[in-house]
Amino acid sequence: MTNLSEPSSGDAVRLAVDCMGGDHGPAVTLPACRSFLTAHPEAELILVGRGDALQPAAGWERCRIVEASEVVEMHDPVEVALRRKKDSSMRVAVAQVKPGEDGRAPAQACVSAGNTGALMAVSRYLLKTLDGIDRPAIAAVLPNERGGGTTVLDLGANVDCSAEHLLQFAVMGSALVAAVDGKEKASVGLLNIGEEAIKGSDTIKQAGELLRAAAAAGLLNFHGNVEGNDIFKGTADIVVCDGFVGNVVLKTSEGLAGMLGRFVKQEFTRNPLTKLAALAALPVLKHLQTRVDHRRMNGAALLGLRGLVFKSHGSADAFAFEHALVRAYDAARNGLLERVHRRILDTLAAMPQSADETTNVQALSA
Amino acid sequence: MTNLSEPSSGDAVRLAVDCMGGDHGPAVTLPACRSFLTAHPEAELILVGRGDALQPAAGWERCRIVEASEVVEMHDPVEVALRRKKDSSMRVAVAQVKPGEDGRAPAQACVSAGNTGALMAVSRYLLKTLDGIDRPAIAAVLPNERGGGTTVLDLGANVDCSAEHLLQFAVMGSALVAAVDGKEKASVGLLNIGEEAIKGSDTIKQAGELLRAAAAAGLLNFHGNVEGNDIFKGTADIVVCDGFVGNVVLKTSEGLAGMLGRFVKQEFTRNPLTKLAALAALPVLKHLQTRVDHRRMNGAALLGLRGLVFKSHGSADAFAFEHALVRAYDAARNGLLERVHRRILDTLAAMPQSADETTNVQALSA
Repeated sequence: MTNLSEPSSGDAVRLAVDCMGGDHGPAVTLPACRSFLTAHPEAELILVGRGDALQPAAGWERCRIVEASEVVEMHDPVEVALRRKKDSSMRVAVAQVKPGEDGRAPAQACVSAGNTGALMAVSRYLLKTLDGIDRPAIAAVLPNERGGGTTVLDLGANVDCSAEHLLQFAVMGSALVAAVDGKEKASVGLLNIGEEAIKGSDTIKQAGELLRAAAAAGLLNFHGNVEGNDIFKGTADIVVCDGFVGNVVLKTSEGLAGMLGRFVKQEFTRNPLTKLAALAALPVLKHLQTRVDHRRMNGAALLGLRGLVFKSHGSADAFAFEHALVRAYDAARNGLLERVHRRILDTLAAMPQSADETTNVQALSA
Repeated sequence: MTNLSEPSSGDAVRLAVDCMGGDHGPAVTLPACRSFLTAHPEAELILVGRGDALQPAAGWERCRIVEASEVVEMHDPVEVALRRKKDSSMRVAVAQVKPGEDGRAPAQACVSAGNTGALMAVSRYLLKTLDGIDRPAIAAVLPNERGGGTTVLDLGANVDCSAEHLLQFAVMGSALVAAVDGKEKASVGLLNIGEEAIKGSDTIKQAGELLRAAAAAGLLNFHGNVEGNDIFKGTADIVVCDGFVGNVVLKTSEGLAGMLGRFVKQEFTRNPLTKLAALAALPVLKHLQTRVDHRRMNGAALLGLRGLVFKSHGSADAFAFEHALVRAYDAARNGLLERVHRRILDTLAAMPQSADETTNVQALSA
């Protein structure tokens, strides 16, 4: 339990922000930070980036600027982010959540809109994984019909996953939903191609067995198998899958939603008559847009590291980026790091056999 | 090349229809058949089902009734369909496309809205797979922004796939699009989590190599890797993936589209004011609905069998079921069976090494 930096109760929560990341850089991140600070009087920020670019923030209250001379571009290969740009805003921001010799870090969470692969690689290199975690995962929220969101992981960090990895994702996802949404007994669904336990690949069937055992031991609330449509029904609070499938789910959903949105726009702007109809329908369409606004769901968590890192969508605007800041803030404030660590250790203690029974022995052995 | 039943040019194309399958049975299938016959004066139908249920169709022109006493219910396990209900309308309908001793079958394609697992199992058992095909696949069409459709396979027949299986899917999908849409050089995308060739699991990377080699040999038109959103962009005409991923893509898309559709309805019926707006927007919304109407895409092909079998959505209405009949008709008329077989044999002849280089030796060895 050493080397985990948690703010003691009553302390201000401090976030490190990679202000240069994403498609828009400071033009988006600074207004978002400003608005976030106003809305969160207990929060403090460390703004990381080039001095000239962060000039507008000089003198902001509860704010400190840490200069970094380089920027990881969206198209930079992971190797460049990792080995060449050692003074990048991304890397310096992530370094702010690395505990020092006293076990405390300058910031309790880091937020970046930089490219996902680079952010995961840099975070993993600088922070290392938690005891008991073999592979970190990326968790994001997709909207569901129940009005809330379904947390899905992994979304692309791991292309091949063992049953133990899926169990770890379930445990980490449960900690995330408990910390950010306050749901202590969030239900976990295992993404499969049918509800019956006999469906799916061997890995999925093994994962189902591990999850049932974990639920029986009181470690998590396992709903059972779910299918792709259940993500949007909100059948389970959390849906676990391997990173290949999760990434396909995310991109497919973004693609379909984008297409339908453009179709709606095209249809309502087709001719003067449809434009008139659009005018009449505008309040309804606006309300609909608010309801499915993915910007409110922005802020994916990189889970399983010895520090909290949140990833904003690269194309996020200030509204969306601020939501990522809020998610990171809530997670830090509610001790997500400590929760993940505790739940993983509990799982290890209750299910030591899961490490021996399978091929991936290292997966659950601390 | 023996035992493949193709109508010789000028012959009428005859479809066998499982009239009892799906959520609605004859209430949907018979009106669809009637409408299909009117629109296709060259077509003939074999209607399969219980005599009493098919009474309304007695005396229809270009139509023959074949009685079957049992019905495979939507919730029946595969074993029941396969071993117990031997006189089911599904089984008898599939049997109509099995060639007799003269190499000719009573019908050139079969259509059923019955449950997918049962239909695949029964078809596989009765018809067997084509030479060179290790595993049959299910191919369906999803709408895309270019106004057409993207053919995706496999959609759930195979949970674990080797690189060779993915190559076979690409070859079979190319034959399908050539036969049904008349595109001889349809492009094939390999579903992955990034566009770069180095992305993805080992299987996906191997599949990429096989597909590049097949393209170099002139066997198909390989676009390269695609991501989930490319399905709806229409980046490639055909997208190949394993059955687990494909099933998740399909269910996720259905779930998201369903949620958004219900949201639109809810927003427009929220109060008298929004209902008024709906009235104004009605023509636009109707046009939009037509544009994204998945019923026009109904009719998934079971590929790789020694006979043509098409699967309608279980919940299809008469309009949708008729579209499945049309797809089956077009496929049969344009020699899909022969096309798949020829392309697979060409692939085997041009790439014999693909069978040796990998673990699944049986995959491409006829």
